[in-house]
Amino acid sequence: MTALPQGFSAHVAAIGIKDDTDDFLVLAAERTTPAAAVFTRSRFVGPSVTLSRAHVANGRLRAVVVVSKNANVATGEQGQRDAAELAAGVAAALGCPPEDVLVASTGVIGRPYPMDRVRKQLEILALPFTIDQAEPAATAIMTTDTVAKVASATVPTTDGGEASIVGIAKGVGMIEPDMATLLAFFVTDADLDAGALDASFRRVIDRTLNAVSIDTDTSTSDTAAILASGVAGSVDLAAFEQALGDVALSLTRQIAIDGEGATTLIEVRVDGARDDAQARRVAKAIVNSPLVKTAVHGADPNWGRVAMAVGKCSDDTDIDQRRVTIRFGAQEVYPQPVDEVGLAALAEYMKGDEVRIHVSLATGRAAFTAFGCDLSDQYVRINADYTT
Amino acid sequence: MTALPQGFSAHVAAIGIKDDTDDFLVLAAERTTPAAAVFTRSRFVGPSVTLSRAHVANGRLRAVVVVSKNANVATGEQGQRDAAELAAGVAAALGCPPEDVLVASTGVIGRPYPMDRVRKQLEILALPFTIDQAEPAATAIMTTDTVAKVASATVPTTDGGEASIVGIAKGVGMIEPDMATLLAFFVTDADLDAGALDASFRRVIDRTLNAVSIDTDTSTSDTAAILASGVAGSVDLAAFEQALGDVALSLTRQIAIDGEGATTLIEVRVDGARDDAQARRVAKAIVNSPLVKTAVHGADPNWGRVAMAVGKCSDDTDIDQRRVTIRFGAQEVYPQPVDEVGLAALAEYMKGDEVRIHVSLATGRAAFTAFGCDLSDQYVRINADYTT
Repeated sequence: MTALPQGFSAHVAAIGIKDDTDDFLVLAAERTTPAAAVFTRSRFVGPSVTLSRAHVANGRLRAVVVVSKNANVATGEQGQRDAAELAAGVAAALGCPPEDVLVASTGVIGRPYPMDRVRKQLEILALPFTIDQAEPAATAIMTTDTVAKVASATVPTTDGGEASIVGIAKGVGMIEPDMATLLAFFVTDADLDAGALDASFRRVIDRTLNAVSIDTDTSTSDTAAILASGVAGSVDLAAFEQALGDVALSLTRQIAIDGEGATTLIEVRVDGARDDAQARRVAKAIVNSPLVKTAVHGADPNWGRVAMAVGKCSDDTDIDQRRVTIRFGAQEVYPQPVDEVGLAALAEYMKGDEVRIHVSLATGRAAFTAFGCDLSDQYVRINADYTT
Repeated sequence: MTALPQGFSAHVAAIGIKDDTDDFLVLAAERTTPAAAVFTRSRFVGPSVTLSRAHVANGRLRAVVVVSKNANVATGEQGQRDAAELAAGVAAALGCPPEDVLVASTGVIGRPYPMDRVRKQLEILALPFTIDQAEPAATAIMTTDTVAKVASATVPTTDGGEASIVGIAKGVGMIEPDMATLLAFFVTDADLDAGALDASFRRVIDRTLNAVSIDTDTSTSDTAAILASGVAGSVDLAAFEQALGDVALSLTRQIAIDGEGATTLIEVRVDGARDDAQARRVAKAIVNSPLVKTAVHGADPNWGRVAMAVGKCSDDTDIDQRRVTIRFGAQEVYPQPVDEVGLAALAEYMKGDEVRIHVSLATGRAAFTAFGCDLSDQYVRINADYTT
């Protein structure tokens, strides 16, 4: 179990959104604290996202409330009223303004919340919250996740003590974050002002949760937020960002390997790129290719599909196939020809739990690493039968 | 069976590229004729594409040679020499310059041709070619296609006669054409100059074969070409383009429904768009969404995934979700709420062989229709075990 940082507590409940598992979380600070958040760029965002964008705009939050298994998206004005009522109900229990509450929700699209059940929960919600561990909170936000996703790190405080950073996340499908991601919440007792927190947070998310893709489908509900209670004292900003990066990277890898139906983590590193955008574009093209993903699933040493995926970046006219290098793990497969022995070795490597693909573009010096998973029959079964 | 237009004949053979099925096609005109071709924009094209681009540059071709089940891509300088030898061998048999031969090839990437077998075939290749039907030609270019794809149309000639247009195509995976497509060859006995032919051909392909996507993966070998023998006489250009469009649209639908593992054709019409590019972007986002594709596969009435896919077009900031309309067949699912009876009707509709999704954006007047297919467990199985 992972203790929440000082100054935070949580409440979870099963309110029966879809089944009898926990589906309601309030993660709260003792008082309103510096906070930052990033959101999906979807044009079909739900009221959770629009409301939360407004609430975090002043860089301060008291709590995050999550309803899981219903996204409250494409639900019209009723959906907006429901989200506002949810924020207000939590705020009333905490004794803070509704604007200090961030609302997040994922699950089926186009169905209104069962507000009778939500209201019953809000009526009994009261401080003190008894949960001081991250795992029950991470469990309460799961939809089709098979494991709860928690990560933590520590960072020294300037007075010789230690601050902690804890992150929780959910998400296994509809995952190609775009400036934000799935649901991920971070809490720390380090003392940081909202501006520094926001800048650090955006840099970290861009290289971690924004680097994961399960199926190229961008959620309407992606939300990542961080709250800093300040109880443990101030920290060196660079050390904090490094530790936060470690937590976010761990969550990123946990999300990729728990991708719907996934059996293998795929890590694609692209270097020697002209700029960050090119490195990211090529890495995403590879990690998102259904043909690369199925080859990894079948441990089929069909490395030519990586060449195909690089080739898809057709606007990158500076990519010259004669200068590109492709490796699986430590094994070069292109341009160095692969003989039968090499193909057998590659097939064996691809049977592992983690397949690392490394492409050097020879167009510059930028690099990016993307994370994803294989595409299995099980992904199809899960998603062909989701609502029914 | 479909007769080839006047002035064309074909030769097919099984040269043993992968198995004992036909894998070699020469489709030839009696003499060098006006021709046009479009190709993949991949940065990893094979020598077939680079050689053929050069050969069609003067708007004239005598023949197309296709080797199927091996793409001759990522094969280095050896691959370039092999492609040139193939073109020269066919040219020698026909008595034309190598520059009048277009070379096309699809199949596994990164393996050289078995040139000993190719050479044996070239040595015995000689006129006259005995095949005057399209079906054997379409069969010889198949890889994992389950059916041969042929379409034809006629167009009146200005002297009161009739010209014919015949098209053949292959392609079931690694299909999201980008300015060109898979392999598709059209022959006509209409009399057209190369410039008019090229302009008509590009407009038609852009709305038909360029509108199909099986799996977002762009082939390294996409090639579509047309040869016009002129034997039947001249035609009205608009009537010709309409007839050519019918042939190409039929091939497009045949390709979509034969997508690897596919059981359902998905047709996505987007209208009320700001411009063609926006209509195409949104239609492609929907037809390519793994979550939409799996929902169709499972006949799961999870229409919210179409809203999600529209939302993915995050740079289209003029799309306002309150003005968007989503329909399945004739049934509106958004913004008009769908009750349980409506969901049951939708599930029933989605069990059909063809699912039509219609989205109106209310940002303008442009429209585009994209074609694709569902995503099934079978797609995964086919592609997890392709080379092994």
